[in-house]
Amino acid sequence: MDTRSTILRPVTVPRTLNGQTAYLERTLELLGPKLELVEEELRSNFRSNIRTIGEVGEHILGGGGKRMRPALLLLVAKMLKYEGRSDVSYGAVVEFIHTATLIHDDIIDEADVRRGRASVNYGWGNDLTVLVGDYVFMHSMSQALKEGNLEILRLLSDATLEMIEGEILGTEQNGRVDLTVDDYFDVVRRKTAALFGVTCQIPGVLVDLPQSGKDALADYGNNLGICFQLVDDVLDFTSSTEVLGKPALSDLKEGKVTLPLILALPKATARERELITQVATNRSFDGADPAEILAVVQRHGSVERTREIAREYAEKARAALSIFPDSPAKETLDYALDFVLDREK
Amino acid sequence: MDTRSTILRPVTVPRTLNGQTAYLERTLELLGPKLELVEEELRSNFRSNIRTIGEVGEHILGGGGKRMRPALLLLVAKMLKYEGRSDVSYGAVVEFIHTATLIHDDIIDEADVRRGRASVNYGWGNDLTVLVGDYVFMHSMSQALKEGNLEILRLLSDATLEMIEGEILGTEQNGRVDLTVDDYFDVVRRKTAALFGVTCQIPGVLVDLPQSGKDALADYGNNLGICFQLVDDVLDFTSSTEVLGKPALSDLKEGKVTLPLILALPKATARERELITQVATNRSFDGADPAEILAVVQRHGSVERTREIAREYAEKARAALSIFPDSPAKETLDYALDFVLDREK
Repeated sequence: MDTRSTILRPVTVPRTLNGQTAYLERTLELLGPKLELVEEELRSNFRSNIRTIGEVGEHILGGGGKRMRPALLLLVAKMLKYEGRSDVSYGAVVEFIHTATLIHDDIIDEADVRRGRASVNYGWGNDLTVLVGDYVFMHSMSQALKEGNLEILRLLSDATLEMIEGEILGTEQNGRVDLTVDDYFDVVRRKTAALFGVTCQIPGVLVDLPQSGKDALADYGNNLGICFQLVDDVLDFTSSTEVLGKPALSDLKEGKVTLPLILALPKATARERELITQVATNRSFDGADPAEILAVVQRHGSVERTREIAREYAEKARAALSIFPDSPAKETLDYALDFVLDREK
Repeated sequence: MDTRSTILRPVTVPRTLNGQTAYLERTLELLGPKLELVEEELRSNFRSNIRTIGEVGEHILGGGGKRMRPALLLLVAKMLKYEGRSDVSYGAVVEFIHTATLIHDDIIDEADVRRGRASVNYGWGNDLTVLVGDYVFMHSMSQALKEGNLEILRLLSDATLEMIEGEILGTEQNGRVDLTVDDYFDVVRRKTAALFGVTCQIPGVLVDLPQSGKDALADYGNNLGICFQLVDDVLDFTSSTEVLGKPALSDLKEGKVTLPLILALPKATARERELITQVATNRSFDGADPAEILAVVQRHGSVERTREIAREYAEKARAALSIFPDSPAKETLDYALDFVLDREK
């Protein structure tokens, strides 16, 4: 399904390409060497006399990643005809902030140790994992400080604080099956959308756009970020282990009740609610059939409804771009929304 | 033993007061209301809509603390006749950075869980502990950003990175009994001295001292910081559980081999070395007598030698102050060194 508005429909890319392929191809075509420079910047940030930092860096960078945040930052910079080199530097900074949160996500709780999740924690143990995450967080700030732009530093610092607050809120919500749609979006806006918003806003500061322009870019990024998280949460229900590299329903197994379930719970039978509560509380499928829970969200159309909401946020993001003149970079930012919507992992 | 040089001997405080009492009394006298403002700043930094942040804040601030770093910053500011309010703000920032590392020190490794150390981790679990530490780290940067001084931001960011590097190096050294004196100081300079150095340098930036003045302040802080850590490591051997609130030799029990042991090991018998290796490796005194290890460092005079080295660093710090004109604040910075040397916990 093509959800792009007619006005923004691309003219130069064959209609047969889907948004996902178009995004990847056009991003490479438009940004090629700059993406490589970001990669080099990331590598150099992990160069250190301290053994563990280098080892963890190799592990993380070797694992790849979509580099969605640097790509978006570079695309916005291109759309705004920014000609400096700071976009590469800030591209590495936002990827680094994202990476730090991923590293700290791997801190294992005592409870998790008991549940045998120890293998997630790479092989460095909690004490080094927390320190390397700290290092990456502070290194990202140090990198941004080199650029010396206080306005951007404040944006980054605010977004990072919001992210951490979102993670804390999310952890507080863990195991709760009485979450409202507002509770859910409260976390998503902070945990995921804030950094995407700032990522897209940064080039606007670099070229000194008027506030309305910066706001439009933040709007694009925030809405794309919400869309990204919604799709992520849908994939946990619809994707198989082979595609995602993790079992479906792994969110619920970690006690996380996401939008598809929040929408389904009021319509579920008492028995189904009990089943869901049991898995979220015990963080285990012992005695519970994942297929039964999948059936609940499918039967009540909550997965499809969540996808619909994701598309609505993508449309808001698309609309935010309308104030900028057409260009290949703008088209690619448009494709990015399809990429986020259509991705299978 | 009075180790103050004759030139700097205080004139207004009765000679019967020891350095420790003098430092505490004079600090209160000189800084009173400003110390309260720092405390208020710390409290306000933990004010949040997010429940866990407030709870952890209450727990941490309720626990007290020497507030050594803010006090030093305010004393240096006073010595330099700084009249603004940024010293209070930066005082809270450095205390906050220190607090963040303390919080992350409480992250428990799987190994520690097995050893039953779980109670250390407050009652929030590793996942919230790591996030609240992140929050405090980033909040300190955000607070410093409000002041908007890029030079100070860079100093803080560099010192924080050094601290984290020092903690990583220290963790890498864990369990090793073949450490050299250089290995030890490599960690101490980063882990402890760097933040003290920057703490004392900040007021120099605020009043725009020439570089030589800022360097002297950094010298004072770095050497005081090294002295602080040396005394800390000595106390682990000499203090009893009642005074420290933790068992003596707790460093070794965590696998940390500090200077008193590094100095004693080459002189120890093969049997003694084996005993020390055993405790450091197993992180347990099972089958080993702490008294025997205490006897090793006492017999070879390594505890006294470590104290001597601490005094040498205190003298270096004292000497660094000599370029500043005499004043009550300068005298109190002098007493601070005695406070650090004489403290019993």
